[in-house]
Amino acid sequence: MIKYLKTVHVFICAILITLSAAAQEHPSLILTKEGVEKIRAELGSVPLFDASLKKLKAEIDAEIALGIDTPIPKDYSGGYTHVRHKRNMIVMQQAGVLYQILDDEKYAKYVKDMLMQYEGIYKTLPLHPKTRSYARGKLFWQCLNDSNWLVYVSQAYDCVYNYLSAAERKKLEKNLFRPFADHISVDSPQFYQRVHNHSTWGNAAVGMIGLVMNDKELIDRALYGIPDLEMDKTAKDDDGGFINKEGKAGFLANIEEPFSPDGYYNEGPYYQRYAMYPFLIFAEGLHNVKPELKIFEYKDGVLLKSINALLNLSDADGDFFPLNDGQKGMSYYNDALVTAVDISYYFGNQDPGLLSIAEKQNKVLLDDSGLAVALGVKNGKAKPFDKKSINLSDGPNGKQGGVGILRSDDLELVFKYAAQGSSHGHYDKLSYSFYENGNEVLQDYGLARFVNIEQKGGGNYLKENKTWAKQTIAHNTLVQNEKSHYQGKFDIGSKHHPNLYLFDDSNADVQIVSAIETNAYPGTKMHRTMAIIKDDAFEKPFMLDILSVKSDSTNQYDLPFYFMGQVLNTNFEYEVPKTLEPLGSDNGYQHLWSEGCGSTTEENTKLSWLDKGKFYTLTSATSKEDELRFVRIGANDPLFNLRREAGFIIRRKDTQNTLFVSAIEAHGSYSPVSESAVNSNSSISALKIVLDTADYTAISITTVKGTTKLFIIANTNASKEATHTLKINDKNYEWSGSYYFK
Amino acid sequence: MIKYLKTVHVFICAILITLSAAAQEHPSLILTKEGVEKIRAELGSVPLFDASLKKLKAEIDAEIALGIDTPIPKDYSGGYTHVRHKRNMIVMQQAGVLYQILDDEKYAKYVKDMLMQYEGIYKTLPLHPKTRSYARGKLFWQCLNDSNWLVYVSQAYDCVYNYLSAAERKKLEKNLFRPFADHISVDSPQFYQRVHNHSTWGNAAVGMIGLVMNDKELIDRALYGIPDLEMDKTAKDDDGGFINKEGKAGFLANIEEPFSPDGYYNEGPYYQRYAMYPFLIFAEGLHNVKPELKIFEYKDGVLLKSINALLNLSDADGDFFPLNDGQKGMSYYNDALVTAVDISYYFGNQDPGLLSIAEKQNKVLLDDSGLAVALGVKNGKAKPFDKKSINLSDGPNGKQGGVGILRSDDLELVFKYAAQGSSHGHYDKLSYSFYENGNEVLQDYGLARFVNIEQKGGGNYLKENKTWAKQTIAHNTLVQNEKSHYQGKFDIGSKHHPNLYLFDDSNADVQIVSAIETNAYPGTKMHRTMAIIKDDAFEKPFMLDILSVKSDSTNQYDLPFYFMGQVLNTNFEYEVPKTLEPLGSDNGYQHLWSEGCGSTTEENTKLSWLDKGKFYTLTSATSKEDELRFVRIGANDPLFNLRREAGFIIRRKDTQNTLFVSAIEAHGSYSPVSESAVNSNSSISALKIVLDTADYTAISITTVKGTTKLFIIANTNASKEATHTLKINDKNYEWSGSYYFK
Repeated sequence: MIKYLKTVHVFICAILITLSAAAQEHPSLILTKEGVEKIRAELGSVPLFDASLKKLKAEIDAEIALGIDTPIPKDYSGGYTHVRHKRNMIVMQQAGVLYQILDDEKYAKYVKDMLMQYEGIYKTLPLHPKTRSYARGKLFWQCLNDSNWLVYVSQAYDCVYNYLSAAERKKLEKNLFRPFADHISVDSPQFYQRVHNHSTWGNAAVGMIGLVMNDKELIDRALYGIPDLEMDKTAKDDDGGFINKEGKAGFLANIEEPFSPDGYYNEGPYYQRYAMYPFLIFAEGLHNVKPELKIFEYKDGVLLKSINALLNLSDADGDFFPLNDGQKGMSYYNDALVTAVDISYYFGNQDPGLLSIAEKQNKVLLDDSGLAVALGVKNGKAKPFDKKSINLSDGPNGKQGGVGILRSDDLELVFKYAAQGSSHGHYDKLSYSFYENGNEVLQDYGLARFVNIEQKGGGNYLKENKTWAKQTIAHNTLVQNEKSHYQGKFDIGSKHHPNLYLFDDSNADVQIVSAIETNAYPGTKMHRTMAIIKDDAFEKPFMLDILSVKSDSTNQYDLPFYFMGQVLNTNFEYEVPKTLEPLGSDNGYQHLWSEGCGSTTEENTKLSWLDKGKFYTLTSATSKEDELRFVRIGANDPLFNLRREAGFIIRRKDTQNTLFVSAIEAHGSYSPVSESAVNSNSSISALKIVLDTADYTAISITTVKGTTKLFIIANTNASKEATHTLKINDKNYEWSGSYYFK
Repeated sequence: MIKYLKTVHVFICAILITLSAAAQEHPSLILTKEGVEKIRAELGSVPLFDASLKKLKAEIDAEIALGIDTPIPKDYSGGYTHVRHKRNMIVMQQAGVLYQILDDEKYAKYVKDMLMQYEGIYKTLPLHPKTRSYARGKLFWQCLNDSNWLVYVSQAYDCVYNYLSAAERKKLEKNLFRPFADHISVDSPQFYQRVHNHSTWGNAAVGMIGLVMNDKELIDRALYGIPDLEMDKTAKDDDGGFINKEGKAGFLANIEEPFSPDGYYNEGPYYQRYAMYPFLIFAEGLHNVKPELKIFEYKDGVLLKSINALLNLSDADGDFFPLNDGQKGMSYYNDALVTAVDISYYFGNQDPGLLSIAEKQNKVLLDDSGLAVALGVKNGKAKPFDKKSINLSDGPNGKQGGVGILRSDDLELVFKYAAQGSSHGHYDKLSYSFYENGNEVLQDYGLARFVNIEQKGGGNYLKENKTWAKQTIAHNTLVQNEKSHYQGKFDIGSKHHPNLYLFDDSNADVQIVSAIETNAYPGTKMHRTMAIIKDDAFEKPFMLDILSVKSDSTNQYDLPFYFMGQVLNTNFEYEVPKTLEPLGSDNGYQHLWSEGCGSTTEENTKLSWLDKGKFYTLTSATSKEDELRFVRIGANDPLFNLRREAGFIIRRKDTQNTLFVSAIEAHGSYSPVSESAVNSNSSISALKIVLDTADYTAISITTVKGTTKLFIIANTNASKEATHTLKINDKNYEWSGSYYFK
C-alpha cells in the first residue's frame, strides 16, 4: 500500500514538474534573465567584473580544450577521480555562466556533453568503493562531496536549461538529477537529516536542483528535511558527533540552530566559511525563485549578519582564527568569501567596507551581486573594512557562551568561551590566541589534518586530531590533573558551555572580556578575565590575563602558553634533559616532549621570545613551588603529522584555589638586514597580586621606569553602573563599573 | 736610535700635514665640492634622490631634537652605550652630508658639538671595561666597532672641515682622531695587522681619517700596514683564526688576499657584505683624493667585480646564501649594498640591472654615485638584474676551489667547494643548499648567533656555532665516521681545499658542477657532481646529486638532507622512538635528536615533504643495508639557541667505496585557501645506478609515465672536446664532452 502510494506520488509530481517547468524562466537561480541583460549591457566598462570574466573565460577555454573526462569513481580526496569530479562541477557551473553572459553556444554544448556523460555513468553507478564514510556518495567517497557537486551543477543546469531540448532535460532529470538528489537525501538520512554543515550542503543541493526543476517535493525536502522520518537519536558520526539528537533537519533548521543571533556559527569560522557557500547560494536561489520566503530576513537577517561575523573572525591578513577544527591559512580570499562578500553587499546595505575586501580578493561573482560590487569599486566607493573589537554570542539564542575579540592597534586577542561547536569542537574552554599584525604570538594549534593532501591520511582528519588537537592541553587554557575538559567527551561537552561575565570595549585603552566555566571539571570553577591595555608606559598595548581557579578538591593545574618563535631568555634557571620523554601518557600529554624544567625564586617568572623580527615577553606571578616547563609538540607522532612547535607550561601542584596572573607584552623589533635590535626588553619590572578575595582581584604592574599601575576586577558584579569602594594597603579606591585601572 | 728616527719621522709628517692641509679642498672624501654643486643643482627633480634625502633629513632632524648623548662606554653589543655610539657615528656622517647638500649650518653645528663631546671624553678613556675581545676598543668592546665609528666619522669630519676653525680642527685631530687611529692600529696590531674583515675596517678607518687630515703616515699605514712590525705567526684570534700567519697587512693586501679574481670573498657573502662598506667607501675616498692610485682598477678591477659576485650570491628575494658564518635574512637591502650598488653603477660601466636593485632598495647614497643611480632610474634606464648560473673561484689566484651556483627557472643550487674561508669558515666541503624562488628547500644552517641581540650571549657567537653550525654534520655533505672534515681543525682546513672538476652551464637544460675533495678525510676521495636538469617529463627542473666515495679504509658514511618543512610521506617503514636521544656525542652529532629510524627493501628510498605550499621529493638509490634516519636539531642546547629544524640522513655502514645518488624534485603546490593540492607526487618511478667504473658513472631515471633518461658523467676527463664511447647493457653510447644526457 505504501509502495503504491509512493508510486502515485512520484507520478503526480512528474506531471506537476512537466506542467510548471514550461512556465518558469531560466536562468532564474543565481543568474536571472533580467540580471544577465544588465550584465551584458555593462560588459567592457566595469574593470573588476571584466577582469573576473576574462580570467574565468581563459580558465574554462583551457578546460574545454582538454576535453571531458568523467572517470569511474575510485579515489579518496586528493586522488585523481576525486579531483577530476570536483573540478568538473566547478567547470560546468562556470561554463554555464559564460554561456549566459557571452551568449556563446560552445559553453552550453560543453555543459550538455558533460552532463550527458554523467547521465551515462550515474544510472549504473554503485556506491563509491571507498568505505570510510558514514554516508558514502557515488561520485565521491562521501555524500558531502556528492552534494557539493549538485550545488554547482544545479546552477549549470539552470544556465543551459533553455539550450536543452525537453527530451534532453527529461533524460537528465530522470536518470541523473532526481536519483542524485534522492541518494544524498532519502537514501542517506544519516547524512541529510541533521543539523550539521554536511547537511547544509545536502539541503542546498536538493533544494537548488529542486528550484531549477521546479520540484516542490525536493524544495520542501530541502527546506524542512525528509518528512516523517524517525532517526536513531543516539547514533553518532565518524567524528563522534550525534547524528540527530534533537530530531531537527532541513535548511531552515540548519540556519536556526548553528547560528547565534550575532551570526556566529557554532563550529567556528573555518567551517562557517565552508558552510557559507551553500547557505548563501541556496538563499540567493530562494530569493530569486521564491521571494515570498524572504530568506535573507529569516531569523532577524542572520545570514547576512553571519558574513559580518565571519569577516570579523579573521586576523589582519584576512586569515580566519583557527578555532576548533580549523586549518590555518584559510582566509577571506577563499571563493566562498567572494560569494559572501558580494551577496552581503548586494542583498545587505551596501557597506563600502566590503568593497575594500572585494578589491583585495580581486574577483567578483559573475552575477547581479558581483556586478554591483564591481560597480561600487569602479565608482570609488570602497572604504577600509575596519575590524573592531567584537563579542559574538554562541548558541541558537545567543545564550551559550561566545567568542570575544579584543583589538588594540596591531594586537588581537581571541578569547573563546563558546559552546562545544558540534563535532568539530575542541575541549578548550576559556582558551585564547593572540596575534600581532596577522602573526601568531600565542597560537591555537588548529586541526591535525592536511585537507585534500592525499598522502596524509587521504586528506582527512588524522588520528592526532583527536589525540592532540582537540585535547585541552593543546590550547592556552587550564588543565586540571592532566585531563581534558568534560573528560574529552563530546556528549558531556555538548551539554555545557561557559558563561560570559563581562565584555567591555567602550574604553579603547582598557578593553576587557571575562567568562566563567564551572562544568569542565566538576567541582572546579574557572573565572578568566583578559584585558588589552594601552598605556603610555608601554610601546604597544599589553595583554593581562587573570585566571582564578576555585575547587572543592586539591589538584594539579597546568597553564600552557604556546608561544611562537625562539626562546630569547628567561629570568629563571632550568635544566634541559639528556633524553626527551613525553610529558604524560594521555589526553594530549603523550604528544608533548618535555624539553626543559625549572623553578624560580623570583616573584615573577619571565620568558622572552623572538619571532619574525618581533620581541615578546611573558611575565607571570609565580611562586617557588611552581614548576616551569618547556615542551615541544611531536612525541608519539609516528608519521610526523604534528608541527614541532614550542610551548611553556606553568605547573602548580597540590593546590585547591589559586590565581594565575600573567602579562604578555609585544615589544620592539629586530631586522636581520640592519641587524639592529630595538626595545628588546620587557617594560615590566614587577607584576603583583595585591589582593584576591571572593569579590575583588587587584593586580599591580610596575614598569622598569618605576611607575605602578593598579588593575582591579570586581569578581561578582559586572554591572557598569555599580559603584565600588575598596581598601588596599590602607588606601581607598572608589570607582564605578566592573573594573578599575589607573 | 730607532726611537729617535721615529720622532723625526713624526715631526716631518706633522709639518707636511700642516703644509698640505691648507691646499686640500673639502669635502673631498666621498662628497666632493664639484659633486655637491651638481647635487644642489638637481635637487627637487630626481625622485629617488629626493626621497632618500627627505627620509634622511626627517631621521636626522629627529635625532637632533633628542639632543646629544655620548655615554661612558660600558656595554656589549645590543646594550645601551654600544647602541648609542653606533647610532652616533651614523648620525654624524649623515648630518655632515645634510650640511653639505642643504647648506644648513644646524647640521654642521650638531656634528661639531658631538665631535667636541667625543674629544672631551676620549682623551681620558681607558680600554672598554668588557674584556671578551682579543682587541678591546675604547668606545666599544672591540676595536672592530671603534673602526666602524672612525670610518663614518671621518666622512662627517670631511663634511664640516671648513665649518670648523683651524684651532677646532687641531684640537680634534690631536685629542681625538690621531689617538683614535693609533689605538686601532699601532696599539692593536693583533687586530690591525692582518688579512681579515676586521682589519679591513681598521685600514679603512685609519686611511679615511688620514685622507681628511692629509696625513701621509696614516694613509700609508692604511694601505700597507704598520711598517716594520714583527708579528707572532702562530697567534690565533677568538674565533680560532690565525692572526697573521703570512705576515701580510694593509688595505691592498686585504684586497689581494681574500678576493678571488672572480670577486668571491673568501669568508662568504655575509661577511663580504660587512667588509664591503669599508672596501668601497675607502676606495671611493682614494679615488677622489688619490686618483693616481687607480684603486678601482687594482687587481684587474676586483672591487667592482666583487659587487657583481656578491649580488649573484643572493637568492630570488635578495637574501645572501648563508655560506660559512652567515646570518639568514641579510640581503641586498642592507645599507652596505646601497653603497655597493651605487658605487658599482657609477664607477663601473652603468649596468642598467643595478638600477632595478636600486629601485628595490628604494634608496641611494647622497653623493655623486647615488645621484647617477637616481638619474638612471628617473630616465627609465632600469632593467631586471638577471641572475644567471655562475661559477666563482676562491683564493687569491682563483685556484682554491670556489662556489658554483646553478639556476634554472625558479630553482637555485648553491654548491660550495670553496677553501676554508678564514676564521668564519665551516667544515663543509662539497656541501650544497637548494632554493625555490627564494625559499630554502634544503638549507644551509648558517651561523649560531643572534647578531646584536644582547640577550643571546651579548649578540656574539654562541657556543653552538662551534659545536654545531661549523661542524660537517650540520651541512648537506658527507660525514665519515661521525667526524668533521679536516678533524674540524682550522689549521688543517686552511691548508686544503676541494678542486673544481667541471662547471658547465652552456646548456640551459642540463647545467652541471662537479668537484673533488681528497683531504677532508685522509685516504678518502669524494667526487660530487650536481646537475639541474630541465626536462619535459617534469613539471619543474630537478636536481641530480652523484657523490662518489673511494676510500682506502672501511667506514661509516652519513649523508644528511636538511629538508625544510614537514614530512609528507615515505616509501619505507620507520620507527619513531619512545624517548629521544642524541644521535652521537661529538662533532655536532650531540645536537641532533634521533627522531626516527628505518630501512627499505625498495630499490629507491623516497621522502616527500611540504613547505610553504610547495611539494618536494627526494629519491635516492639505496640498499636494504642503509639506515634511514630522521633527526631534529636541538639536543644538548641548554639555552634554546638552535632552531628545531628537521633532517634526514642516509647512513651506510662498513663500506669502503660507494656511490650516493639522489634526485630532488620540486613539484606542485598546495593552497590553504583553495585547499587544492596540485601535482603532489614525485614524477620519478625509478632512479638506478646502471654503471659505475673509475671512468664513468651512469644513472637512469625512469618517470611515472614510463620514459627513461640516462645521465652519464665521465669521471676522469672533464674536457669539453673529448669524445667518449661506452657500452652499457649491450647498447653503445657515443658523445663528446664530459657528460651525456638523453
